[in-house]
Order: sequence, then structure tokens, then C-alpha cells
Amino acid sequence: MPVHVGVVGSGDSDPITDEIAERIGREVAQAGAVLVCGGLGGVMEAACRGAAGAGGLTIGLLPGAERSAANRWVGAVIPTGLGELRNALIVRASDVVIAIGGEYGTLSEVAFALKLGRPVVGVSTWSLRRPDGTREAGVVVSGVEDAVLRALKLARASSA
Amino acid sequence: MPVHVGVVGSGDSDPITDEIAERIGREVAQAGAVLVCGGLGGVMEAACRGAAGAGGLTIGLLPGAERSAANRWVGAVIPTGLGELRNALIVRASDVVIAIGGEYGTLSEVAFALKLGRPVVGVSTWSLRRPDGTREAGVVVSGVEDAVLRALKLARASSA
Amino acid sequence: MPVHVGVVGSGDSDPITDEIAERIGREVAQAGAVLVCGGLGGVMEAACRGAAGAGGLTIGLLPGAERSAANRWVGAVIPTGLGELRNALIVRASDVVIAIGGEYGTLSEVAFALKLGRPVVGVSTWSLRRPDGTREAGVVVSGVEDAVLRALKLARASSA
Amino acid sequence: MPVHVGVVGSGDSDPITDEIAERIGREVAQAGAVLVCGGLGGVMEAACRGAAGAGGLTIGLLPGAERSAANRWVGAVIPTGLGELRNALIVRASDVVIAIGGEYGTLSEVAFALKLGRPVVGVSTWSLRRPDGTREAGVVVSGVEDAVLRALKLARASSA
Repeated sequence: MPVHVGVVGSGDSDPITDEIAERIGREVAQAGAVLVCGGLGGVMEAACRGAAGAGGLTIGLLPGAERSAANRWVGAVIPTGLGELRNALIVRASDVVIAIGGEYGTLSEVAFALKLGRPVVGVSTWSLRRPDGTREAGVVVSGVEDAVLRALKLARASSA
Repeated sequence: MPVHVGVVGSGDSDPITDEIAERIGREVAQAGAVLVCGGLGGVMEAACRGAAGAGGLTIGLLPGAERSAANRWVGAVIPTGLGELRNALIVRASDVVIAIGGEYGTLSEVAFALKLGRPVVGVSTWSLRRPDGTREAGVVVSGVEDAVLRALKLARASSA
Repeated sequence: MPVHVGVVGSGDSDPITDEIAERIGREVAQAGAVLVCGGLGGVMEAACRGAAGAGGLTIGLLPGAERSAANRWVGAVIPTGLGELRNALIVRASDVVIAIGGEYGTLSEVAFALKLGRPVVGVSTWSLRRPDGTREAGVVVSGVEDAVLRALKLARASSA
Repeated sequence: MPVHVGVVGSGDSDPITDEIAERIGREVAQAGAVLVCGGLGGVMEAACRGAAGAGGLTIGLLPGAERSAANRWVGAVIPTGLGELRNALIVRASDVVIAIGGEYGTLSEVAFALKLGRPVVGVSTWSLRRPDGTREAGVVVSGVEDAVLRALKLARASSA
């Protein structure tokens, strides 16, 4: 079964972030991996566009109950009707999570990934410090150019 | 967006039921529709095998948290970790539900479909009577040969 | 820990059904049991009124995300935001389910109870027949006067 | 309706943290508020013990499907069977969240609270920095002595 890479980030992003997300989506598909995301706009849409353009499978887990809310690059649309609880489903369905940017929804997905033992690659995302001031090492900081490569390595290492 | 047909039935079925499910899955795919199911064995596996063999997209919403529980004909695997609550997600993700056979899980999916306003086509499935003894008309009884045709018509009528 | 009795039924009921639900709620509390329900109006509100009036604890699992939707007799309010999936949570939180009346939501709760192995006492509710025409015996048909007594006996037998 | 205060923290804590949690639970109950938590041990149990000892209502949303996993100070036990997704339900059921300590589950609850617009009071908990290095201000850092007072003020301000 192919690696499933969750790509999480804001539904309301800027052109530079979208470009990053599209590149990441494309590389996920080129590696033969499946892209899992929240199915809406912004980072989710850009990542799906990249992956779909490269012939990859994209899965979108929507917060609402209407399939029509999905962006048009989602191949398998799941309208969960669970609201923001669907963020945890995205993480469960992923072997590794790439987090882009710094919104609250993204933070919740990073937190769930840490809780569920999924590796996280962070591109310009949250920095988390424990009560004693030490940095949380579970989020691997990465540039755009090697984010997917790192994610795939981490996914393989954690399933090995 | 293509019609999404949920196919629900026992995970522990017999060869005749499996043959029915495989035929239904194949016809779903041949009609260009997406097959949604619970992703496990029995009816789910047979329906996926039929659909995948005809080149269709199959979505499997698993009760557990491990993707490896999916049958090998599922294209998009979602390990929900929700237990039997995932039965309701299958219904939400479907425009119409084809119910095969008479187990409790199938009954829960028929009930959710009625509750959420999804049409139901029943092949050898539960018969439901209201307190006043009248038969519930929301489950359209069908033979195997025209189950998919009826389901597609009902899906189109309900979304029109 | 006290027995938890789920009372499920329409949110939009008539005065006679409400009277039945209120009596059942009162008897649940008088037996020292906890009442679990969907927290809204109709049967749910009447059952809560009966139980709260007799000093019992009432738990309401709401479909929406706003606590204010609960009827005023719910002691512990849980706004799940899960929509109709919360029907399955009501069943999970109950040792036995008393189903009153014949709406689709009630049917979904009866179905989940059967699936999860919870005994069901039915008062003027759905009659379920398997594909071979036999009546489903998992729903114990009862009059109002002994519904709670039967439910408590079934709960004790199933946990013994 | 009384204020509902979510108290979140590790299920496997130390005696000093337990003392903090018990004090916070007691003060929640003394203020007439309802305590919402995950229903298990550690911080959850200590907070429930404090609240129940002061005569308050305690609600426990368990990750598993068995009610028996609840600590004995939970008044209303909800076995959700949702696994770690129940963390989001705890937040939804709370008007304000007090986070104690620095485990991943606590982080997920803080993140959901920020996402859902619930105020968060943090006692020796995570420090969150956005991509640009600025500290997330949505988590109000507090000592033990005024954590409940702050939480109640924030809850009232956000519902006003």
C-alpha cells in the first residue's frame, strides 16, 4: 500500500504559500504516494491541484456534510459532517503529516499527529515549547525543497 | 461530480451474496459512479472487487484506526477509528445506498440513510414496519438485476 | 455504578407520547438509574422532566455544537457537534435503550443498540423483519407500565 | 446555565500536579461551575475529586467504549468510543479550558480550544509560537491560585 501523506494548512492562504503547497502536492504524487487533506481551499486546494496534475490520488475529508464544498482536485471526497473533529481523521488517515503555515486548524492537526505518533514535517509552521522551555522535537522543521523527501523517509522509518 | 453509491452489507457473507455484491460493484463502476463502503471483507470486499475490476474508484471507511484492515480492492482507504459510528459516515458520503442482506450493521446504515434523506435500494434486506403496522416505503425493494439502475435513478431524482 | 438507561424517541411528539416518556423518565430516576438521551424536545424533554422531577441525573447528548439547544431538564449537557452521529453515542452511553415511537432517528438508535449488543425495550416502536420474514427478537415489545422494569432487568442480565 | 470549565492534563501525572488539579477542581465546583474532563486518571481524576468533594457536577468524556474506565469521581460518564477525537468533544462541551502540564493530548485540547474560540488558561503548559516567532496570546498564562478566577472571567466575557 502506498504511503499516505497528509498535507495540512490554512484554507485561506496567500499566493506564495499556495505555490509551496502545490509543489509539495506534486512531489507527493510523483513519489507514488496518496495525498490526504481537508478537501477545501487554500493550502488544501493547491496541494490537491499539484497532486492531481501529476496523476496522484487525492483524498479530501470535509468538515461539512455536503460533498459540493470540496475543491475540484479532490479525487475521493468524504463529507464527514464532524466539523473540526475531522482534523483528527485527516491525521489518522496519514502516515506522516506536512504542516504548512500557522493557523489554529493546522496547530490542531500537528497536535493530533504528535498524540497519535505520526511524524510531522513543518514548513513555516508553529514552534512548540514544553513547560520547561525546551523545543518539541517531534515537528521536523524543513524547507520546501526537501519537505516531501523528509516526510517519506519519516513515514517509512515509523512503519518499519 | 459523479454519483456516489454506498454499498452496505455483512462483512461475513456467503458465496451467493458475494456474487451479488460483486455484480453490483461492477455495475456501479461501469456507470461511472464511485463506490463507497466500509472497506472490510464479505459484501464490502466483493463489491470493491467488482468496481475495481471495472476501473472504478472505491472508497473504504474503516471502523478501526489501521489502514491495513482494508480489503485490497479499496482505492481510497480511510481508517476512521470511530468504530461503528463510521456506518453513519458511509451514508453521509453516499448519494444513495444499496443494502444487501440482513445484519445489524446493515440495519444501522439503512436507518441512517432514511434519517439523512438518502434513498435506499434493498436487495434481500430488512423490512421495516412502523408502529401502526404500515411498511416503511423509503426502502425500495429490488432484485439484483436492476438494483444499480434504480439506485442511480433515485440518486439523480433526489439531487435534482 | 448505576444503570444508565437511554430513552430515545421523536423530538416532535404528541401529548400522549410525552406523558408516556415523562412516566418512563420518572421511573428511571426512582430506580436510581441515570437517564441518557438526545437532550432536545419532545420525548427527550418529557423523559428528562420526569427524571429530573424525581431527583435523577439526566445526560443530554446534543447533535449541535451549542449547549443552549438542550431542554432545561438536562443535568449534564454535551453539545457534540456530530449531527446525527450522536445517536450512536447515546446508545454507547446506555446499558439498555427504551425506544418510544416510530421516527427515523429512533430507528437508527434501535439499530445501533442491536449492533452494539445493548438490549432494547420498544414502546409503540418499529417492528423489524429479517429478509426471511422472521421478526427481530432483539427488540422486546412492552407496554408503558412495565417498560422500565423490563429495561432494568435486561441491563442487569446483559452486564452479569 | 452554569459555566462549564474544561480541565485538561495528563492521565499520568505526579503528586504536585495532582494537588494543583484537585485545587482547581474544587474551586470550579465552589464557583457553581460544571467540570468537564476526559474522565480518566491523573489530572482528570484529581480535578474530579476536588470538584466532587465540593459537591459539583463532573462530566467525563472517555476515549473508550467502556464506562468502567472512568475515575470514581465522575458524575456523568460518557464512553465515546472515539479515541483521541474525544479531546475535541471535551473542548466543545466547555466554555473555557484550563490546561495543566505539557503532554500531547493537552496540546491537542489547547489547539482545538483556540480553533473553536474557547479561551484557554494555561498552568505550566505549552508555549506556542507562530512562524514569525511571536507568542500565541490565546493561551493566558496563569499561576494556580488565580487560574479558576481567570477562567470564569474569560468564559463570561466570551459569552457576553
